Amino acid sequence: MEAIPNILAERYASSSLKSIWSPRGKILLERRLWIEVMKAQRELGVAIPGEAADAFESVIEAIDLDDIRAREKVTRHDVKARLEAFCAQAGFETLHLGMTSRDLTENVEQLQIYRSLHHVRGAAVANLCALRGNADRWRDLVITARTHNAAAQTTTMGRRLAMHGEELILGLERLDDLIRRYPFRGLKGAVGTQTDLLNLFDGDTSKVAEMERRVLAFLGGARVLEAAGQVYPRSLDLEVVGVLLGVAAPMANFARSMRLMAGFELVGEGVAKGQVGSSAMPHKINLSKCERIDSFQNVIRGHLAMLAGLSGEQWFEGDVACSVVRRVVFPDAFFAIDGLLATGHHVLGHMVVYPAMISRENRRFQPFLSTTAILMAAVKAGVGRETAHSVIREHATAVSEDLRSGRTEENDLFDRLVVDGRLGLSAAAIAEVVAGALVSTGLARSHVDTFGRLVGEWEKRFPEAVRYGHEIEI
Amino acid sequence: MEAIPNILAERYASSSLKSIWSPRGKILLERRLWIEVMKAQRELGVAIPGEAADAFESVIEAIDLDDIRAREKVTRHDVKARLEAFCAQAGFETLHLGMTSRDLTENVEQLQIYRSLHHVRGAAVANLCALRGNADRWRDLVITARTHNAAAQTTTMGRRLAMHGEELILGLERLDDLIRRYPFRGLKGAVGTQTDLLNLFDGDTSKVAEMERRVLAFLGGARVLEAAGQVYPRSLDLEVVGVLLGVAAPMANFARSMRLMAGFELVGEGVAKGQVGSSAMPHKINLSKCERIDSFQNVIRGHLAMLAGLSGEQWFEGDVACSVVRRVVFPDAFFAIDGLLATGHHVLGHMVVYPAMISRENRRFQPFLSTTAILMAAVKAGVGRETAHSVIREHATAVSEDLRSGRTEENDLFDRLVVDGRLGLSAAAIAEVVAGALVSTGLARSHVDTFGRLVGEWEKRFPEAVRYGHEIEI
Amino acid sequence: MEAIPNILAERYASSSLKSIWSPRGKILLERRLWIEVMKAQRELGVAIPGEAADAFESVIEAIDLDDIRAREKVTRHDVKARLEAFCAQAGFETLHLGMTSRDLTENVEQLQIYRSLHHVRGAAVANLCALRGNADRWRDLVITARTHNAAAQTTTMGRRLAMHGEELILGLERLDDLIRRYPFRGLKGAVGTQTDLLNLFDGDTSKVAEMERRVLAFLGGARVLEAAGQVYPRSLDLEVVGVLLGVAAPMANFARSMRLMAGFELVGEGVAKGQVGSSAMPHKINLSKCERIDSFQNVIRGHLAMLAGLSGEQWFEGDVACSVVRRVVFPDAFFAIDGLLATGHHVLGHMVVYPAMISRENRRFQPFLSTTAILMAAVKAGVGRETAHSVIREHATAVSEDLRSGRTEENDLFDRLVVDGRLGLSAAAIAEVVAGALVSTGLARSHVDTFGRLVGEWEKRFPEAVRYGHEIEI
Amino acid sequence: MEAIPNILAERYASSSLKSIWSPRGKILLERRLWIEVMKAQRELGVAIPGEAADAFESVIEAIDLDDIRAREKVTRHDVKARLEAFCAQAGFETLHLGMTSRDLTENVEQLQIYRSLHHVRGAAVANLCALRGNADRWRDLVITARTHNAAAQTTTMGRRLAMHGEELILGLERLDDLIRRYPFRGLKGAVGTQTDLLNLFDGDTSKVAEMERRVLAFLGGARVLEAAGQVYPRSLDLEVVGVLLGVAAPMANFARSMRLMAGFELVGEGVAKGQVGSSAMPHKINLSKCERIDSFQNVIRGHLAMLAGLSGEQWFEGDVACSVVRRVVFPDAFFAIDGLLATGHHVLGHMVVYPAMISRENRRFQPFLSTTAILMAAVKAGVGRETAHSVIREHATAVSEDLRSGRTEENDLFDRLVVDGRLGLSAAAIAEVVAGALVSTGLARSHVDTFGRLVGEWEKRFPEAVRYGHEIEI
Repeated sequence: MEAIPNILAERYASSSLKSIWSPRGKILLERRLWIEVMKAQRELGVAIPGEAADAFESVIEAIDLDDIRAREKVTRHDVKARLEAFCAQAGFETLHLGMTSRDLTENVEQLQIYRSLHHVRGAAVANLCALRGNADRWRDLVITARTHNAAAQTTTMGRRLAMHGEELILGLERLDDLIRRYPFRGLKGAVGTQTDLLNLFDGDTSKVAEMERRVLAFLGGARVLEAAGQVYPRSLDLEVVGVLLGVAAPMANFARSMRLMAGFELVGEGVAKGQVGSSAMPHKINLSKCERIDSFQNVIRGHLAMLAGLSGEQWFEGDVACSVVRRVVFPDAFFAIDGLLATGHHVLGHMVVYPAMISRENRRFQPFLSTTAILMAAVKAGVGRETAHSVIREHATAVSEDLRSGRTEENDLFDRLVVDGRLGLSAAAIAEVVAGALVSTGLARSHVDTFGRLVGEWEKRFPEAVRYGHEIEI
Repeated sequence: MEAIPNILAERYASSSLKSIWSPRGKILLERRLWIEVMKAQRELGVAIPGEAADAFESVIEAIDLDDIRAREKVTRHDVKARLEAFCAQAGFETLHLGMTSRDLTENVEQLQIYRSLHHVRGAAVANLCALRGNADRWRDLVITARTHNAAAQTTTMGRRLAMHGEELILGLERLDDLIRRYPFRGLKGAVGTQTDLLNLFDGDTSKVAEMERRVLAFLGGARVLEAAGQVYPRSLDLEVVGVLLGVAAPMANFARSMRLMAGFELVGEGVAKGQVGSSAMPHKINLSKCERIDSFQNVIRGHLAMLAGLSGEQWFEGDVACSVVRRVVFPDAFFAIDGLLATGHHVLGHMVVYPAMISRENRRFQPFLSTTAILMAAVKAGVGRETAHSVIREHATAVSEDLRSGRTEENDLFDRLVVDGRLGLSAAAIAEVVAGALVSTGLARSHVDTFGRLVGEWEKRFPEAVRYGHEIEI
Repeated sequence: MEAIPNILAERYASSSLKSIWSPRGKILLERRLWIEVMKAQRELGVAIPGEAADAFESVIEAIDLDDIRAREKVTRHDVKARLEAFCAQAGFETLHLGMTSRDLTENVEQLQIYRSLHHVRGAAVANLCALRGNADRWRDLVITARTHNAAAQTTTMGRRLAMHGEELILGLERLDDLIRRYPFRGLKGAVGTQTDLLNLFDGDTSKVAEMERRVLAFLGGARVLEAAGQVYPRSLDLEVVGVLLGVAAPMANFARSMRLMAGFELVGEGVAKGQVGSSAMPHKINLSKCERIDSFQNVIRGHLAMLAGLSGEQWFEGDVACSVVRRVVFPDAFFAIDGLLATGHHVLGHMVVYPAMISRENRRFQPFLSTTAILMAAVKAGVGRETAHSVIREHATAVSEDLRSGRTEENDLFDRLVVDGRLGLSAAAIAEVVAGALVSTGLARSHVDTFGRLVGEWEKRFPEAVRYGHEIEI
Repeated sequence: MEAIPNILAERYASSSLKSIWSPRGKILLERRLWIEVMKAQRELGVAIPGEAADAFESVIEAIDLDDIRAREKVTRHDVKARLEAFCAQAGFETLHLGMTSRDLTENVEQLQIYRSLHHVRGAAVANLCALRGNADRWRDLVITARTHNAAAQTTTMGRRLAMHGEELILGLERLDDLIRRYPFRGLKGAVGTQTDLLNLFDGDTSKVAEMERRVLAFLGGARVLEAAGQVYPRSLDLEVVGVLLGVAAPMANFARSMRLMAGFELVGEGVAKGQVGSSAMPHKINLSKCERIDSFQNVIRGHLAMLAGLSGEQWFEGDVACSVVRRVVFPDAFFAIDGLLATGHHVLGHMVVYPAMISRENRRFQPFLSTTAILMAAVKAGVGRETAHSVIREHATAVSEDLRSGRTEENDLFDRLVVDGRLGLSAAAIAEVVAGALVSTGLARSHVDTFGRLVGEWEKRFPEAVRYGHEIEI
């Protein structure tokens, strides 16, 4: 029977993430934890032969998945099968003393999650730097900002990218917070009371505490939970995927901006040599990478829903009603965010901007983009704000209708306002306001600079981000 | 690099489903559709060499995934890569005429879905029959029905199973409805107008219609959409997974009933020889199969969320912002429901019922289970319903508190009601009511029989369900 | 304390839906069901005074919410409070005999749902007719179809609307199916066994069956469940909201098409006299109604998630872990779909199309829109399909880059293809192909006509749809 | 037409939360912000009459909802309607200068959210203290811990509560983090560039910065966003509801523990005088408050899904496709968590524990609960761990089957192990192990104490939590 691959891993994920989550990769982590625990127990006085550690370490990489699978068919218990296989290879039964399955699996799965979070942080910082690079590059390129997909005022392309970039910083802050306080379950035993470990150490509580310290040092985290049951609280898993969505959202917004702008022919995501847009329509180059980014976000939302169904749904000290869900979500949510960030980084490295088209759009909407400036001028000239608003609205909508219906080709809003007279602004006064408004984009450039400074702090913390290279074919 | 398997497929899905969704299986379906279209075009007058069909058919099974992958790296277009690979093998370029990629992929993916729905229906009917078998077997076993997890009245074990079974019938009805009216997209071309096909046939609309008829006959469905765009409406995908949840829900409810009953030691899910419940606690046999069923349901809920994010989110005539989502959901939702139904069928075939424990529970709650009967008797004897309710409640809660606090070991509710006197029922009268109530379980048995008749109709339609054998190790 | 209104009801819902779901509306339905049951019981021989029915009916509309609330504070049981209040008003205690709370509330809530589904069907058919009206009106208006938000081929505005309309028909079919087979719970008693009803009728099963027939006749549905527990399966609720999403999706797609088209200034949603688009920018008229439609869909998706959390999550014969969820989702999901459909109908009645702008867009993309026709012509002239595709792609992407970068103002693709020569098409041949392609929109018009015929069948079944008037201020 | 109330607010929310979210409450906040901005503008040199501020302040509480509604029917723009109404009352048009609607509404809505988060933190700390109180009270009460709903080992009731309490601390940490870094949007103008404010101040950027500082001081937050568009990133809203779920989950887990324990008659949630459990079954007292807690969590999950559909779904600088969703989710998610925490606090204050029943359960499972201790003893005596596990499992499952089938009433596991002999433990040795195991609950008590210390830190920071009084009728 042909194997069905994990489509997210196969098509989109990086090898470093895949090595964390591969079947062998996980078993290797388990074996390392088992040995670590065994060595510590021996040092703490448990009667374990000195040669056991070497025996286990000598076969640690000899992982025979077929043998394990055969054992699982008998025991119907995956950890038991992996334990027996390892013991049979080493010729000792000195592993897993005072432990329950979850002492092993909970900590190892958390370790996979914890390392993956670090990986995601690196990739997110790389995207942030790439956003900053583009924001700087297009800092001064005036574009037509849109709200409700309608021309509103001018801004700059760099400012639009900084907007997405700042949202990514919010996401990074959450991710950083989570990594900082991520609590491991530790060795809590079958129901959380550490009874068996305590028995193993003949009631010596200080040895139990020492064991947990060593396990934590091995895992690399900041702390262990104090009162977990057989399993750690699944609300922690939900937070993990929530944090991934916090990183995905700004990139999805950026991708949507790109898709919308491409519809106006303002940007493209770059074309590889030989790339085909459509098998039917030879002229087409689609923004499929940006569409894919939005699609990845949707996948992770589904993972959020899966975990929301586990969080706050635990029975007593634990059960495995979470099992299949977690087998799916971890790793898939990490593969998806990994693909999303790799794709985002590629788009940011290859995006094409068409200043000629942007300029064409600005010209078309110019008079409308100046209406708030005219409104301000009228207010300063003594007209009531609501009155001025009403006058401009009346003429602007009329011009708009005339343009769209083809009755006029020329946007003559300024002339109409002068003729109307209620704003108390002469043609010259309006011309002056408009001249200012056209080159002005408020504090857009300054916001880009501020954003750049914020990114600088992240870059300083994670200098390796500049070397981020997504290896997958985008 | 070690491949990461699709965990749902590897651990839980049946080979028939996997063959529908494997990489090669999909390419084979595509090639069949391409050839079918080409042959029809030739018969309808398109200048295609007679030997082309044979050339393509002779290499149809020679699927070289590496070659296709290499081509995709150049074209960045998966369909184009598969098309070129197939053409190169056959030495002709006569495929895909008048077609766009989605003419191929939409129909093939729908075909995968359509066939999977048939597979699920078969497995669901098998579960329904297994539920009926157990309902019949335990038709008369009186148990303590619970609401709010508290003892309420008596029912029978068979009646409880019939309750879950009837919900499964509701799910099957929906699934059946969907299969009946499932519409295929057909050959609609790049934006839905069938322009290129019409051009190919020099404007002969009847030939376009004939093409669609042939494609539909190949697909095996009942109808094609009339006005789809490049892609079919994604709300249809959402309905598919909604229907899968309609089948999953009753099984998840059954599994939860089992998990709860097992807590009271009333049932077990059967133990395989050599099976280990806990690697720490040798005495434990967990209800992990039933927990897994509930976990599968949660996975499919996440798929529902993913598709809810696509449905009603389409742009114009189509895009690929749905692409990664659909690559994940189909097939994963089918693998999950397949695993759920296989597990459910296994549990239904191996479940163990402990009448001794059930009887023990009935005895404990007996006087409470008769309170509605006493209430009815009091009303018939002329006491106001609300008055009688209040009297019984007063004594029942007192007895309950006494029992729970250990003040009494004996449930003496009947004595207290007689002494109170307000119900107007003598000890003898109460005894008579109670005697009736104990053996009576209302129409529980009759409901089981009605359920059995309903199942009979499904069994008649799908006689192969009795031979349903889930091949996976549960 | 100021009351907080239900925002969906207050702003968006119709009075007919609100009357179904108002506090008094619900109590009225409960009282009617109670009386109906009481009368039937009397006719079937239960000792109930003849004057009781009149006594209850005389106070049926005298609903004192304050009195009920005060009673609930004591009993902590809402049904008990409403029962006592009604009995106190009428001076009889002859209601609710042999019933449990859920015999009342489950059926009444289902009745609210059932009637609301009918209301939604009417509103959906009205939207369908309005879509057809616009599809007919713009049947022949050639527009630039887009895939991936990029110009692809020509279609007609009517054809695009028919695409959304056909999806709405799929939604209506599901809704219709659900109404047809919607099963009521009926009178099943505390755990589903009908024990108390059977006791009330001294074991006469035919009287129990007769009671259910009468209740079903009162409710107006097609059938009752046979083996429900205290509550009906919550997967049925999930299906209800799934069906609402099936109706919402096509309207959300239509609204998104409108929002995207408005960005290109091709359409507007109509402007009311005095309407303000933006409090800051007087020129703006936003497509806020269409944005609202998309927002409504998102609300209903959240309701789907809430119910997905109940479906398959039941404990034994029933509990109230579903209670708050259902109080929220029903009615809110109905208010939301009601607002969505009223808004959709309004937009369809007021949408403005700008043919001048559409024509301008067509002109810009014209040469590209003809590439598939040229491809077909080249194939017919003997060039291999993949070769021809490659040639056209090469030139089209070059032209596109030249246009976007401002290097040329003129789309000279046709000239370049002639000069290249590899397609074997002369300038005259290309001109002929293009002339045909420009007026041709494939079978777009025919699809509009087919869609119209399909709508006709719905219109015939629901002629009142043409009189659909949403009363709310849109 | 009868108004439809917001059911969550009416039934479950506290008056302090309701006053934040009431229609008047919101308008009042808006008016305060408007006046604050106007005053600051005047001080920064904008020509605004000195008496305007007094004029506005004198009518600030005179909110005429009918007048506003009438104006909205004309303008179709809610902010414009509220602005005009306020201006008309005060006789000035000097508000909203240089502002767009979102300068008002985004900040006010964030302020509502920000204050609500503080309210939730207070209520959560109160629940945490109540959990600690119960954990302390039942610190030493030995109970049967369950995994997979099966008896596993002993723990204490206090330890189980500490487990839920520690999860609540995790939720509080997240909530605390969010409050600390919650960024307000500030005054960014129509597209984020602050153009109009800059114009108002004649290009003086320092005055724009000063305006934002004053607004931030009014709002009370720590910082404003630097580069937001018309709206702030909706991923921030998603985080807010994610954080609420982090608080809801531990309480939902606690409630489920209660519901499961009540099924075994180990606990109750307390009964109010006069309370009715079931309108049919007078003896019943349901755990409906705990069921309600679980139901609240489900509601908030739906809100999470709604916001997940907004996050990363923004178009350009902003739109209102989020509008209806946010009107629903905020306030409903806060009403729901408020109801959840009030209910949780009530249950924690009234929960009843039945030591007699607990002791009965411990006795039944005692031999099984000691199997890990025996396993440890056997390992220490030199038997291989996997061998010992297998021996105990063999006998334990046999005993279990014998007990459940009624073949024996006595759990004679210890005798069978002695007779078997393979463990190498004499009857006396086993008796000694068991004696220790029965009183031992590992480090359960110590975990309770550690938990108490952690709670102490929260209590010190929020001493008002002890006075938390939920005013609603639970």
